[in-house]
Amino acid sequence: MQELIDLINKEGHAIGNNILKVDSFINHQIDTKLLNDIGAFLASKFEGVTKVLTIEASGIAFGVSVASHLGFIPCVFAKKNTSKILDEKNIYRTFVESFTHGNVNLVSVDKRFLNKDDKILIIDDFLAEGNSALGLIDLCNQAGAEVKGIGVVLEKGFQGGRKRIEELGYRVEAAATIEKIENGKIILK
Amino acid sequence: MQELIDLINKEGHAIGNNILKVDSFINHQIDTKLLNDIGAFLASKFEGVTKVLTIEASGIAFGVSVASHLGFIPCVFAKKNTSKILDEKNIYRTFVESFTHGNVNLVSVDKRFLNKDDKILIIDDFLAEGNSALGLIDLCNQAGAEVKGIGVVLEKGFQGGRKRIEELGYRVEAAATIEKIENGKIILK
Repeated sequence: MQELIDLINKEGHAIGNNILKVDSFINHQIDTKLLNDIGAFLASKFEGVTKVLTIEASGIAFGVSVASHLGFIPCVFAKKNTSKILDEKNIYRTFVESFTHGNVNLVSVDKRFLNKDDKILIIDDFLAEGNSALGLIDLCNQAGAEVKGIGVVLEKGFQGGRKRIEELGYRVEAAATIEKIENGKIILK
Repeated sequence: MQELIDLINKEGHAIGNNILKVDSFINHQIDTKLLNDIGAFLASKFEGVTKVLTIEASGIAFGVSVASHLGFIPCVFAKKNTSKILDEKNIYRTFVESFTHGNVNLVSVDKRFLNKDDKILIIDDFLAEGNSALGLIDLCNQAGAEVKGIGVVLEKGFQGGRKRIEELGYRVEAAATIEKIENGKIILK
């Protein structure tokens, strides 16, 4: 998606050879025009979706945008913390390692919001090693829901996430793909 | 907002006399048609806004919706955790007590995204005691940004948040107000 590629070239920053900082338009301050266009782009890549599944926090904006463009279908976001009003007996749960934060999160979805009749599109802001997407796929499998595919805003193509997901038979679409980060320079596909 | 009031009556649940569970359409599974309509409603209540400020996680969907309806202005979400790519010297920070989770969060915004020229609309899903909104007002004050008002989806009118905020001179708008929760019954204004 050219609009996104242009913004990465203009405002994105690389830290070392791994970390991409896009917090001025993606995951701290959000460019809502770009958000709307990314939502339309990712929505156009998938058919027959009944529900979007994403993960808090920075997946939420993109999840609801895609779900709106798919005809205002529901968007569920998996939670990283268990609040006192989330009934622990009635949740699907999995563990997700965060590349950015360097920790492991218990991620959960209330069983009422994932069902065997759901045809799920998984949406996230980043695809790196694929841990987050694989965790969300695991939640769908626990519910018996069908996964129609995985849509991400930014794929870091050099961290293997796409390969791990495609090997399980799922389609991956990205609005932009980073081929590599080299000495602080971002090289886009 | 009648559409929201109808959904609260249909799908909302009260726990005890304090907690309102609206996770089937507001803060776990999101009804994206309702989200869009709430965004339009809250956006229509304020003028001269240049940026929306909200807080992760469940404020984000409503923040970006309102910002989109205000002409695709930027939406910044305050972060509750400090990742290793967030430079600690360059953030505004405050402490916010969470009524739902019963803990205190360090909440931060990168200094690049709040400026003295910004005219900020603060958006959140819930207004209870007002701690979250007061924390976001504090961040705006640190930046010298002007706060144009506070818009929330659901106000729990019996917990005093509106009074604390209005006493500081800020306007509060809510899409729906809960007068009280009594023996598991939700009484709407």
